[in-house]
Amino acid sequence: MSDPVFAEVSQEALLKIFTIPEAPDSTLGKIEKHLSENLMGFLGEHIVAREKPLHEIEQSFCASQVPESPRYVSDHTEFLLNNLVAHSVHTSSPRFIGHMTSALPYFLMPLAKLMVGLNQNLVKIETSKAFTPLERNVLGMLHHLVYQRDDAFYQRWMHSAQHSLGAMCSGGTVANITALWVARNLLLKPDANFAGIANEGLAAGLAHYGYKRLTVMVSERGHYSLAKAADVLGIGRKNLVAIPTDEHNRIRIDKLREACEKVAADGGRVLAIIGVGGATETGHIDPLPELADYAEEIGAHFHVDAAWGGATLMSSTHRHLLAGVERADTVTIDAHKQMYVPMGAGMVLFRDPSMVRAIEHHAEYVIRHGSKDLGAHTMEGSRPGMAMLVYSALHVMGRRGYELLIDQSIDKAKHFAELIRQQPDFEVITDPKLCILTYRFVPARMRQAIQAATPEQIRRITPHLNALTRFIQKRQRETGNSFVSRTKLLPAHYHREPTVVFRVVLANPLTTTAMLEEILQEQRDIASQAMSLRAALFTEMRELGLIRD
Amino acid sequence: MSDPVFAEVSQEALLKIFTIPEAPDSTLGKIEKHLSENLMGFLGEHIVAREKPLHEIEQSFCASQVPESPRYVSDHTEFLLNNLVAHSVHTSSPRFIGHMTSALPYFLMPLAKLMVGLNQNLVKIETSKAFTPLERNVLGMLHHLVYQRDDAFYQRWMHSAQHSLGAMCSGGTVANITALWVARNLLLKPDANFAGIANEGLAAGLAHYGYKRLTVMVSERGHYSLAKAADVLGIGRKNLVAIPTDEHNRIRIDKLREACEKVAADGGRVLAIIGVGGATETGHIDPLPELADYAEEIGAHFHVDAAWGGATLMSSTHRHLLAGVERADTVTIDAHKQMYVPMGAGMVLFRDPSMVRAIEHHAEYVIRHGSKDLGAHTMEGSRPGMAMLVYSALHVMGRRGYELLIDQSIDKAKHFAELIRQQPDFEVITDPKLCILTYRFVPARMRQAIQAATPEQIRRITPHLNALTRFIQKRQRETGNSFVSRTKLLPAHYHREPTVVFRVVLANPLTTTAMLEEILQEQRDIASQAMSLRAALFTEMRELGLIRD
Repeated sequence: MSDPVFAEVSQEALLKIFTIPEAPDSTLGKIEKHLSENLMGFLGEHIVAREKPLHEIEQSFCASQVPESPRYVSDHTEFLLNNLVAHSVHTSSPRFIGHMTSALPYFLMPLAKLMVGLNQNLVKIETSKAFTPLERNVLGMLHHLVYQRDDAFYQRWMHSAQHSLGAMCSGGTVANITALWVARNLLLKPDANFAGIANEGLAAGLAHYGYKRLTVMVSERGHYSLAKAADVLGIGRKNLVAIPTDEHNRIRIDKLREACEKVAADGGRVLAIIGVGGATETGHIDPLPELADYAEEIGAHFHVDAAWGGATLMSSTHRHLLAGVERADTVTIDAHKQMYVPMGAGMVLFRDPSMVRAIEHHAEYVIRHGSKDLGAHTMEGSRPGMAMLVYSALHVMGRRGYELLIDQSIDKAKHFAELIRQQPDFEVITDPKLCILTYRFVPARMRQAIQAATPEQIRRITPHLNALTRFIQKRQRETGNSFVSRTKLLPAHYHREPTVVFRVVLANPLTTTAMLEEILQEQRDIASQAMSLRAALFTEMRELGLIRD
Repeated sequence: MSDPVFAEVSQEALLKIFTIPEAPDSTLGKIEKHLSENLMGFLGEHIVAREKPLHEIEQSFCASQVPESPRYVSDHTEFLLNNLVAHSVHTSSPRFIGHMTSALPYFLMPLAKLMVGLNQNLVKIETSKAFTPLERNVLGMLHHLVYQRDDAFYQRWMHSAQHSLGAMCSGGTVANITALWVARNLLLKPDANFAGIANEGLAAGLAHYGYKRLTVMVSERGHYSLAKAADVLGIGRKNLVAIPTDEHNRIRIDKLREACEKVAADGGRVLAIIGVGGATETGHIDPLPELADYAEEIGAHFHVDAAWGGATLMSSTHRHLLAGVERADTVTIDAHKQMYVPMGAGMVLFRDPSMVRAIEHHAEYVIRHGSKDLGAHTMEGSRPGMAMLVYSALHVMGRRGYELLIDQSIDKAKHFAELIRQQPDFEVITDPKLCILTYRFVPARMRQAIQAATPEQIRRITPHLNALTRFIQKRQRETGNSFVSRTKLLPAHYHREPTVVFRVVLANPLTTTAMLEEILQEQRDIASQAMSLRAALFTEMRELGLIRD
């Protein structure tokens, strides 16, 4: 046995796991080699394609106590391979096009290992040293990507102790919460007679400034993390106002204006207007310049949630889609989405580097006043050196590398939409903006009838089509060859009837047109097996007089 | 050049970084091998010992734009080695005893690489599958470690969709915020005439229940993240009430009672009482049973912040120090502290599995109602599979392995305190509870005098000693052989005069007694070089008549 032995409890055995590496011919050593040499091969070999029911998987994970005795690394690794890896999700498969996790570049794996080996803690310089300026540099580059200020600006602020161009976060949710936290604390700031909301609390802040409540305005396509943010920050989910969208899933400025006027008339105050910079479900982008104008007009904080879409700024071809983002006070971008970095790399950017004063905090043994410790300006405390992976991805791929990835993704999405349109039995529900689109299966013989249906007829047919879409999506996932996700939309051309759709995200550069064709064919095949769902649908259609026998 | 070439922008070159692994003889391949075979050797060889001033390091990280063109992985890796790794912190060095980051077991490095290779997203089952039950299992085991409920309890709740025994978080700060978020939402919960704070917001909740404000009570040794939590949640930092501690740095129950009565008399409501389960600065543990009693008496939520100390529960020898923790409503434990897991593995545990209803949220395309998606019950959204590393550490080391680590750390700290006591020119400021202690250097010739000094004399001497302590700590850090941290305490026996102290955390199993002796000797040597600081100190002592020439 070449494993570092640790299945005994002794001082000597214990020290071994800290001092003796895994041997290359140990189980873990072999896994590592396989990962390094052929990640796709490793995943293809070890992940079981056909889905095991969750309740069966749970059987492997139901021991309720910390195991008493140590275990050999090799035995434990075998267990992980058979029970965890085997039933995990092949997120980097080019046929896994349902969510935003895609294949990652190879070089990030060894770098991630280096990150763990270094185990820096970014909360303070004493445990991160060069990682602190590196993180500030990454935030500076992303700030430039959005705001494009001149060199002098970055020379002045990038490494300034009392300022921050942004904050690294574990993900987009914390980034969005941070942005609204900053906005809230800036609005209810200290003055001669008030110590500020950070000190006095929200209720005192509202009372001092004479507002009944704060509201945050975002389109009905806003990400669910915003409701969480409204809850956490004490604003209340009810005060996150969902504004209707137009037929292109973009926020309606007229409705926004109406809603904001109503808030003011009721004694409330609009804290922030949020622009969606790539909707999670459809990829659509709000009219950011109009939102910026209106936010300025009513003195509201303007935040853009570009967690997904932000990377598009690296494409000269498509950058214009996000025009207006540079007028945002704060912007969220996730590097673990379209920047192809592993999970755990969110960012929020601050247009004004002194904004973070609103959330600054210190402690005696770390993040002292005047230090450059990043912890003074982040919601989180101890954090890993994920910024290194972002930095490396930016350097190895370069802006032009990202541009190629993004341009190709968008082209692929457009091509897929075209392909769907050519099918007699599928329909596009939302056209791709960025590389996300939605569609559904509709039996060929009712395609025409449904186009001509009345609102009442649509109301009666849709539940049947929804059931069919759900069935196809689940079955396809369980079969394990490919994966698309599903969501529910309110399409204007179907009279805003809640409509279940397939949702695809075409970010994986290894996805080919042939694979997309196969995915449609597989869905068609599954649909043909859904006898009873189809029967119910056709019965309904017949009863409505929309088709004949 | 055996690197996968990507310093050109073409479709073909781009696909290479996604499909062709780093060659074993590439720069990154060699680094990885070195990391695998000899992490300490790698770090010792590449991290430059003597500190480079931060402003010089910043020169390497000041480019303000995303680089335009791609770069060879090997060139970029060389850059990282020379500019980032060289000037990072050797946190796993056995002489780095200033913070809570320690050496990690070897097997976690390849497992971390596996985690990145799998790139699961724990927000939902569709992108994590077996990782979801695994994470629930880890939370169950930690819940059992704290609450020790019977098997039936865990059978019933561990994998229940609408329940959670805890939540994985990026770190202790998010864990503490989550705990207080749950507490806040439970207190201001929905009733017949109120939709609840989550919906209506904090101000409406206070108004409905007739409270002027909420307060959170914690000893003056509470972690700084709690002030952040009070700010984020809208409670206000002022309403985080710092309760004085006794001579052992434990919260004074009489003062707590007084403070809570004052809150009630002012029309406020005590939301939560927080017990410190291992103070960050001193390792001390509050009298948890008394806190539990009192929290129960006044109907406040009882949270224990055991981010550092929680792992002590795995030691039969020392578990009793945390007696009473099982009465807490919520408990924070960080696996990246005394559980020897890489950065990014915080946890909050819920005594009652249905508590999370207070913060539950759903969305159409993920975390749907009735799903087991973890995202419904966490503050964060997309998250990596860190739970696997915790799970593996628990299994490979076992409870008894951890017990050995913890017992040895505490023994080592006691031994170090003894060693300090034997020196003529050092004094212990806080005795070790757990493996943390604080001390300082005091020139031998004034040791006796300072013991007998009056409060006024202490007030005049202390700033000089503080300056000396600061000088020694900084110089030692800059020299790069070893690192202790420093903080400021209010020692009872020095009349609560703000006193700067060295702080050590003896968690690294590779730290030896000989190293601790060397660290003291190095501090003594540095002190002897601090001529002007010593001169000023002695002048003051002479003027006060405490020493003679």
